[in-house]
Amino acid sequence: MSRIIVGVMGPGEGVTVKEIEAAAELGRLIALQGWVLLSGGCNRGVMDAASKGAKNAGGLVVGVLPTGDRDIMSSAVDIPILTDMGSGRNNINVLSSDLVIACGMGAGTASEIALALKAKKEVILLTDHEKGKDFFKSLAPEKVHLAGDPSEAIGLAKMILETSA
Amino acid sequence: MSRIIVGVMGPGEGVTVKEIEAAAELGRLIALQGWVLLSGGCNRGVMDAASKGAKNAGGLVVGVLPTGDRDIMSSAVDIPILTDMGSGRNNINVLSSDLVIACGMGAGTASEIALALKAKKEVILLTDHEKGKDFFKSLAPEKVHLAGDPSEAIGLAKMILETSA
Amino acid sequence: MSRIIVGVMGPGEGVTVKEIEAAAELGRLIALQGWVLLSGGCNRGVMDAASKGAKNAGGLVVGVLPTGDRDIMSSAVDIPILTDMGSGRNNINVLSSDLVIACGMGAGTASEIALALKAKKEVILLTDHEKGKDFFKSLAPEKVHLAGDPSEAIGLAKMILETSA
Amino acid sequence: MSRIIVGVMGPGEGVTVKEIEAAAELGRLIALQGWVLLSGGCNRGVMDAASKGAKNAGGLVVGVLPTGDRDIMSSAVDIPILTDMGSGRNNINVLSSDLVIACGMGAGTASEIALALKAKKEVILLTDHEKGKDFFKSLAPEKVHLAGDPSEAIGLAKMILETSA
Repeated sequence: MSRIIVGVMGPGEGVTVKEIEAAAELGRLIALQGWVLLSGGCNRGVMDAASKGAKNAGGLVVGVLPTGDRDIMSSAVDIPILTDMGSGRNNINVLSSDLVIACGMGAGTASEIALALKAKKEVILLTDHEKGKDFFKSLAPEKVHLAGDPSEAIGLAKMILETSA
Repeated sequence: MSRIIVGVMGPGEGVTVKEIEAAAELGRLIALQGWVLLSGGCNRGVMDAASKGAKNAGGLVVGVLPTGDRDIMSSAVDIPILTDMGSGRNNINVLSSDLVIACGMGAGTASEIALALKAKKEVILLTDHEKGKDFFKSLAPEKVHLAGDPSEAIGLAKMILETSA
Repeated sequence: MSRIIVGVMGPGEGVTVKEIEAAAELGRLIALQGWVLLSGGCNRGVMDAASKGAKNAGGLVVGVLPTGDRDIMSSAVDIPILTDMGSGRNNINVLSSDLVIACGMGAGTASEIALALKAKKEVILLTDHEKGKDFFKSLAPEKVHLAGDPSEAIGLAKMILETSA
Repeated sequence: MSRIIVGVMGPGEGVTVKEIEAAAELGRLIALQGWVLLSGGCNRGVMDAASKGAKNAGGLVVGVLPTGDRDIMSSAVDIPILTDMGSGRNNINVLSSDLVIACGMGAGTASEIALALKAKKEVILLTDHEKGKDFFKSLAPEKVHLAGDPSEAIGLAKMILETSA
């Protein structure tokens, strides 16, 4: 049996303190559930915070990096997957995740949400970006779930994973 | 000097007659400008209509396909690029386009718009999807342009390409 | 500190009993060293045998799959990375490996050896394919190492990893 | 009907004058046949020479680049496909080619030959690298063809394309 992998996607740059804190808490709660955390693996923004949150809670952290080396890797990544594909790796992130949690919003994050929906994945949005929530909810009402905080996101994740198991 | 390449991105499925007609007209106008049309290359939806529109007007048509063979290729494609990468090829579509026109809306199209914005490309939206326009305009106000019909989209494209040349 | 990842590459089909046994033993020894095993992740040939060898010895097994789902995944994979990229994922396999051990020979395996050498990776060949050994040794004499059996391959791997650490 | 695309693969660096001349002549002959030339698209080595040979003879030149921009593009490329995938783009090169001609030898070229054989493509080798010819011929005796000079390679290509048409 392979491990349950939960992807946390979010911006590397232009992130608020609140989003960083939410990402760290998501990482922590994912680790406590015994799930593997997967992110884009970089040493900044949501990717870094989620990875450190999971790592500090004893979790296993996979980073699917845009680069072919470890120069911009988060120090909390256990398993670096080096793609050398830039944003082309975003599709791998979402395909490899049993479900995707988007924390914050930006162009890269939006591409990951959209690619996840294209692949019929369930996506949980944890963001204040109202137009983003409106848009993705309109694209796939049954696949997009809205969470107000990390613990609500993890509660939704548990329900979704149990239903699909 | 390499050729100017304009990408037309849009859904393969769930497309309205109006969107199909707009895609065909976009293809035709792109060919008349002497630009190369690039699309996802499949034999359905916006990709097929835009390819046929360009081809019938004497244009050159590049299709960057999700598959490793030509089974689902539009018959109007001159140059098939076979990626065998599924939606992972969406990033190649937008990187290879001097500018991107999105015709219609769906999860795959949204991923292409978002990847284009991530790569700092200019994007023209030709769609009735109001929440999509609101969202992408909010993500990148200066890179996202709204067109009401194909000829307005081509007018915008000319201005953008002249400015960046 | 991220984990040390050793890639074992080899054919899915046309494999001899001796190669299957060698792959299983490589997996076992990699796990005993505390290294993560990475392979192409499929449920056949060298990939499957190496994964099971590592898993049975308590190791952690990463499978970088050519597919976008788990239909052909080895049952011993802990962390499936779903690329949906076919053989395009071969470059990810070698970039993500601290060193590459090729067990057996075939077109796919040859592509992974060549991509590893292109990326300046060290490669250990464990194969009876004399023309393959001659060729790759001639391409990169200092990066290609020949092993006669799994335990010699692991001894070489230890030396290489210690030198590069 | 899409165009016939012939891929010419060869090293960017460490190329002999003879290989450069052969690449240019291959490009020229491919253009004279009315075929599209596809290469890795860079501004050096076999890729550049073949592209210029085809371009100067009035041919259409596709370059599937490892980069996400045109900084290292051959000036003879008409249609740049920007992958931002590094050597991961090698699989796209061979999948998109109706047949592959390898001119010269190196790790990248070897990966393209191997990936082409993995995809059941016909490959023509034009190289003095005896161990390379021995190896690939042993891997796939019926798919690998040896040519002594560019005109022999094109003669083989015509025969292969006619047979498969």
